[in-house]
Amino acid sequence: MVLGDSELAGIGLIGLGTMGASLALNIAEKGFKIAVFNRTTETTRKFHAEAGDLAAQVVPCESLEDFVAAIKPPRSVIIMLPAGDILDQQIGVLRGMLDADDLIIDAGNANFHDTNRRTKEAKAAGVPYLGIGVSGGEEGARHGPSIMGGGARSAWDRVSHILEAISAKHEGQACAQWMGEGGSGHFVKSVHNGIEYADMQMIAEVYGIMRDGFGMEAAQIGEVFARWNEGPLKSYLIEISAEVSRCSDAKSGRPLLDIILDRAGQKGTGRWTAVEALHLAAPATVIEAAVAARNLSSRLDERKAGESLFGAAPTALDLDALRIDALEQALIAGKIVCYAQGFGLLSSASEAYDWSLPLPDVARVWRAGCIIRSTMLNDMADALTQNPALNLMFSDFFAALLRDNEKALREVVAVSAKSGLPAPALSAALAYFDMMRTGRSTANMIQAQRDFFGAHSFERFDEPGAHHGPWHKS
Amino acid sequence: MVLGDSELAGIGLIGLGTMGASLALNIAEKGFKIAVFNRTTETTRKFHAEAGDLAAQVVPCESLEDFVAAIKPPRSVIIMLPAGDILDQQIGVLRGMLDADDLIIDAGNANFHDTNRRTKEAKAAGVPYLGIGVSGGEEGARHGPSIMGGGARSAWDRVSHILEAISAKHEGQACAQWMGEGGSGHFVKSVHNGIEYADMQMIAEVYGIMRDGFGMEAAQIGEVFARWNEGPLKSYLIEISAEVSRCSDAKSGRPLLDIILDRAGQKGTGRWTAVEALHLAAPATVIEAAVAARNLSSRLDERKAGESLFGAAPTALDLDALRIDALEQALIAGKIVCYAQGFGLLSSASEAYDWSLPLPDVARVWRAGCIIRSTMLNDMADALTQNPALNLMFSDFFAALLRDNEKALREVVAVSAKSGLPAPALSAALAYFDMMRTGRSTANMIQAQRDFFGAHSFERFDEPGAHHGPWHKS
Repeated sequence: MVLGDSELAGIGLIGLGTMGASLALNIAEKGFKIAVFNRTTETTRKFHAEAGDLAAQVVPCESLEDFVAAIKPPRSVIIMLPAGDILDQQIGVLRGMLDADDLIIDAGNANFHDTNRRTKEAKAAGVPYLGIGVSGGEEGARHGPSIMGGGARSAWDRVSHILEAISAKHEGQACAQWMGEGGSGHFVKSVHNGIEYADMQMIAEVYGIMRDGFGMEAAQIGEVFARWNEGPLKSYLIEISAEVSRCSDAKSGRPLLDIILDRAGQKGTGRWTAVEALHLAAPATVIEAAVAARNLSSRLDERKAGESLFGAAPTALDLDALRIDALEQALIAGKIVCYAQGFGLLSSASEAYDWSLPLPDVARVWRAGCIIRSTMLNDMADALTQNPALNLMFSDFFAALLRDNEKALREVVAVSAKSGLPAPALSAALAYFDMMRTGRSTANMIQAQRDFFGAHSFERFDEPGAHHGPWHKS
Repeated sequence: MVLGDSELAGIGLIGLGTMGASLALNIAEKGFKIAVFNRTTETTRKFHAEAGDLAAQVVPCESLEDFVAAIKPPRSVIIMLPAGDILDQQIGVLRGMLDADDLIIDAGNANFHDTNRRTKEAKAAGVPYLGIGVSGGEEGARHGPSIMGGGARSAWDRVSHILEAISAKHEGQACAQWMGEGGSGHFVKSVHNGIEYADMQMIAEVYGIMRDGFGMEAAQIGEVFARWNEGPLKSYLIEISAEVSRCSDAKSGRPLLDIILDRAGQKGTGRWTAVEALHLAAPATVIEAAVAARNLSSRLDERKAGESLFGAAPTALDLDALRIDALEQALIAGKIVCYAQGFGLLSSASEAYDWSLPLPDVARVWRAGCIIRSTMLNDMADALTQNPALNLMFSDFFAALLRDNEKALREVVAVSAKSGLPAPALSAALAYFDMMRTGRSTANMIQAQRDFFGAHSFERFDEPGAHHGPWHKS
């Protein structure tokens, strides 16, 4: 197959799975001619056949050779494959066929450590490479995802017009942004996913209080979520929580939620974020709690054994005093804490990896297209613009919002504790808030213990240096 | 220097820092002749000069050549150096001077991944290697530590008589035990340290409620800890909490605790444990909370800024109803949960790394010598002997103890939430308990959301397989 110059594609994409296919159609729809390739030729053919009006913009290729030949040099190739060895193999094969100035863009869910390595390898070989985080699921990929780019700025600039064109827009602003060198784009995406875990867990916790504490039906709960979606919590996740709560199961006629098994899966990105937070000593306790809750949900038999041993939630008595509004307020407060931790983690990573992450831009690209998109992110972008180094909880806007809502968070956590309806993420959020506004903590006890048994020494208030207690012998 | 056969040492030790020197004296005291070497010769000489009656049992060596020549073949050499590159270098140099059947024993705080690697390297080279966890601080190393061994069983058997002789004894039983292959000994030690973090944090939390909630003086708090040390909480950490609480500062005349800065340090082993728990999907949320609390304690200026923004703890009103006894009971419940998570983590690691960890023996070696030694560990050893696969919370003994004490844990967590005196570790313990005795969790909401935005599918109660909601198009 030999194409004339005008027939050449402006960009190529390898991997026509759900996300890759959606992204390719999105690119075609925005007016860019795109060459596509999939290991299974049948998939490529089917994709082209079903592309409808967009088929003319798509160049389906049945071999990698044809694929490379179909793209106008210097080429840009997006790879959308599962993270791991497959990706390295694909890059290796492709690189052997490309020119030195051809750009490879990994748009999958790579661990940022791998992207750091691949960027370094590409740099050593003198070839351009980008790792971009793409959020928004199938729908987002097709009609406008949020895109977080990492790698050399010059490489980003080569394709930014395409990525901006296909991205979601918030009041006309493209939700596609270069975050920094190396794996920074995939790191930001990973923190996004960690926050997504936490947002979902906190929603599940208040859902549980409504269901098991107030004894509300799924549809009623859906009405509550729908109402909240008109206030400060307005967000995609609250919106879909309303939708799934109101949904009926065609087969049984029961609320769909009630027939779904309570065993949650995960793909690992939340866990990566929690691990990285530990390594960077940047506590993301709300995300940690959410990751743990998913893990525990999968231990269905063990939980059932526990229930038969200890009985169900002890009492709903304490719920009498609780208002539904308090649940909304608790979610608001919990969400602020969770995002403060997330941006704190980004800030620590930015310093540790020398990235200069543009925190306000992170908030901006998350305002549309991605799973955690919400009204509140707009206010976060503003607060971070004023002072990106500040703990987000301490910004004027969010400090005021926390003051208005912390009492409700206290009530909900206390009710959860007393009634036995678990709220691990909201509890973690409250504990973080309280620790960060306690000037005199109890770590003096820990330092005394450490010096006692391990001679680790402690600091004193009244003089500098390392000190020991009188129990210390030498 | 040429020694006659009867003058040769039965074992050697490299690294005469605090822990190494204490261990060497312990070995000498138990009747084993020991060759010692330190990179700085002055340290070796000083050690020998100060060994007193034990000097005759010590062969001080000023070069590695002399050191190797002073040990009777086949040799056993303990290395006690900081974890990391230094250790690898020392092993490399030493290995070049040893015979193939000479045994190297790393007794430092290595990360078990490194010990796995070193064991593998030794195995490939056909030379014996052990990684042993030694707990108990300086005092333990000198008079009887808890020892957790990892590596080939045959290597352990060569030195077990020495390690058992120097170890702590619980009612005559040596607290030294082979745990399994590779890095298993260092892994068990790491989990010990994680639990140590959690125990200390929970103690600090109830200390905080007494100090800031009840307005008690340090000495009064010390009396309470001393009383608790005669009940189910009897343990080294409660004992030293009493001691440090009662201690006066010679300089200021004030309680020593009150002049110690509340900024806690850490050496990383707690963090390793939390990271590993995430990788193994074996939630250790109480340890995670403790690691986070230490990290946050170090942010002193930020916490002070938070206090000036949000004010100190909101109110102590809710404390009226709380009894001191409830704090003791909450600690008992929190401790059970924490250890259930710790043993659960060991169990997951044992499976993942194919170690066959002897869980009852882990509890047994922790009963004396180490920092977390406690009466309760004896009951844990019994419970784990009956059924090592069971969640420790579900064993007859601890289920009964939990039933007696969970209400107090609820009260304390609720009071903490309402009064703003943070109790992150106790809160995490309660949430875990409640999640593990909830047969019907709220993860159905999370599964519905995941299917809605990512087509991840969900399971149904009423039929097998993967299902989608009606929102799913394809």
